[in-house]
Amino acid sequence: MGVVVPLDDERGRGHNAVAQLQSLVAKDMDDVNEFIRERMGSEVPMIPELASHLINSGGKRLRPMLTIAASRICGYKGSDHIKLAASVEFLHTATLLHDDVVDESDLRRGKKTARMLWGNQASVLVGDFLLGRAFRLMVETKSLRALEIIANAASIIAEGEVMQLAAAKDTSTTEDAYMRVIQAKTAALFAAAAEVGAVIAARAPNEAAALESYGRNLGIAFQLVDDALDYGGRSATAATLGKNVGDDFRERKITLPVVLAFRRGDAEERAFWQRVLQDGDQREGDLEHATQLLARHSTIDATIERARHYGSIAKDALAIFPDTPYRQALIDLVDFCIGRTY
Amino acid sequence: MGVVVPLDDERGRGHNAVAQLQSLVAKDMDDVNEFIRERMGSEVPMIPELASHLINSGGKRLRPMLTIAASRICGYKGSDHIKLAASVEFLHTATLLHDDVVDESDLRRGKKTARMLWGNQASVLVGDFLLGRAFRLMVETKSLRALEIIANAASIIAEGEVMQLAAAKDTSTTEDAYMRVIQAKTAALFAAAAEVGAVIAARAPNEAAALESYGRNLGIAFQLVDDALDYGGRSATAATLGKNVGDDFRERKITLPVVLAFRRGDAEERAFWQRVLQDGDQREGDLEHATQLLARHSTIDATIERARHYGSIAKDALAIFPDTPYRQALIDLVDFCIGRTY
Repeated sequence: MGVVVPLDDERGRGHNAVAQLQSLVAKDMDDVNEFIRERMGSEVPMIPELASHLINSGGKRLRPMLTIAASRICGYKGSDHIKLAASVEFLHTATLLHDDVVDESDLRRGKKTARMLWGNQASVLVGDFLLGRAFRLMVETKSLRALEIIANAASIIAEGEVMQLAAAKDTSTTEDAYMRVIQAKTAALFAAAAEVGAVIAARAPNEAAALESYGRNLGIAFQLVDDALDYGGRSATAATLGKNVGDDFRERKITLPVVLAFRRGDAEERAFWQRVLQDGDQREGDLEHATQLLARHSTIDATIERARHYGSIAKDALAIFPDTPYRQALIDLVDFCIGRTY
Repeated sequence: MGVVVPLDDERGRGHNAVAQLQSLVAKDMDDVNEFIRERMGSEVPMIPELASHLINSGGKRLRPMLTIAASRICGYKGSDHIKLAASVEFLHTATLLHDDVVDESDLRRGKKTARMLWGNQASVLVGDFLLGRAFRLMVETKSLRALEIIANAASIIAEGEVMQLAAAKDTSTTEDAYMRVIQAKTAALFAAAAEVGAVIAARAPNEAAALESYGRNLGIAFQLVDDALDYGGRSATAATLGKNVGDDFRERKITLPVVLAFRRGDAEERAFWQRVLQDGDQREGDLEHATQLLARHSTIDATIERARHYGSIAKDALAIFPDTPYRQALIDLVDFCIGRTY
């Protein structure tokens, strides 16, 4: 499963940036993928079938790449980073399986979700199986600190999802409350994925802290951009994204573009948001109207500006590391994540 | 949360036996309960609310008691057994939350299930939160071997549940296939709960193996009896059990009483089982008829005989330990588990 690095890239620096990182970690990621295939096996055929549907569905493996790159930037020479990276991907896959059940999603990355093909029940259980496997893999690295970090992240992710559930459909959600949700549900795993790379390299605490900060802020930026993309971003289309524009709208999720549009809007606009998201009374043309309101108040731009802010913090966090191709690739990765909106 | 030990017990030796164990571990279990209360906390109020609904619903805490008793029988003097026991209970609670979602259960221990009160979504997510907390607690004991054992158990439990899902509603399930399911979904956690008690006491491998065997065989016996009780056992009623008789029937689960009745039955009886469990066409009077068929072929008795077989293995596994009140209480616990059917 080699990674194809395009020699000439028309989509600009952002896209090139992730290719650069992919090329640096390509060999390690081959090992990670091999490990994933090996360890998702079970004598119960439905488990690897369902797990591989999602694991092989064309995700970018951003989180395990973070673990690999973080360990390499810290000069790690061993082989436990492969296990940790696989473990991070298992944990991520488990949360996706459960998320799709919780959100009742039909599509992910343009393909039918596992729950649509195998049912909610199997998705919950295979998620649990993968969580167990994730911890089993981490134990093999014998790093109690890495285990602690990832176990904490597992709880925090679930906390974030419950927060989201509790705040769901409340159009008066504050920007702060929204930020708490995405820090927990998304950024915590990015942070953990990067931090454990430093931890197994047994580097000074300030390097682990720097990578944790990089991961956390990158994760926040990533989720902000994701939420902007769900309303089409600036120029993207569903076809180029492999994602259905308007999913969050249909699932009545209160994301930052909406939080800001609700606050910036007048009484009539607020009544609209309440009807479609709070009361769930969605009619034809509502998504288009919603998109117009976001444009009227420039909340997609504002969301991406927020993402830039966190992206800058992520980049600066890496300043303590020497200028190597790994550092540059991680810095460029931030641009890639934000550049997805063009 | 002291345990009341009845001085005079009319329900015979079985019930007395668990009181004996409860009294031996009472102080430790107070600490475990304290720890559970402390560690299920979250700034997201729905999490402790939902978790405590199930954790305080009057379960016997059999699995954490096993961890405590196993550590004590191995002469453990430290305090990490409390954390491991709490962690075992968290893992168990997480699987119950997910099971109720998977089985679409309305009641557990005579109370509305969490999913009926807070919804399937919250039940899945709070289960995940507790899994994370379980691993976090284990990390604090610094015992990589205990972590390995419990992480393995977590995957095996999920495997067992998926196996059950795959075999669901197939009336021609073999006794062997059924046994594989219950070894995974139930006995694996009993085995792990007991084994980790020996592991933190740092005793010789044969003692850990003995306790693993005790736990596993007790778990099998426990599940067999549970499945017999779901059809009323020998004389129990729903009121005395705090469990709805016929739940497995309504959920179309293929348990040993049915596996045996299908095999021992004639063509007409097999057609009945296929209609009610395979095709799901259940009519009034069907549960009564099913119970009559189980009685005709003595499959409740046969199921309990099987339980006795595993119970004997469990008891013999403890022979290598000196004759202490702990050993006696663990032996009597087997009788309690089987004696529940009277």
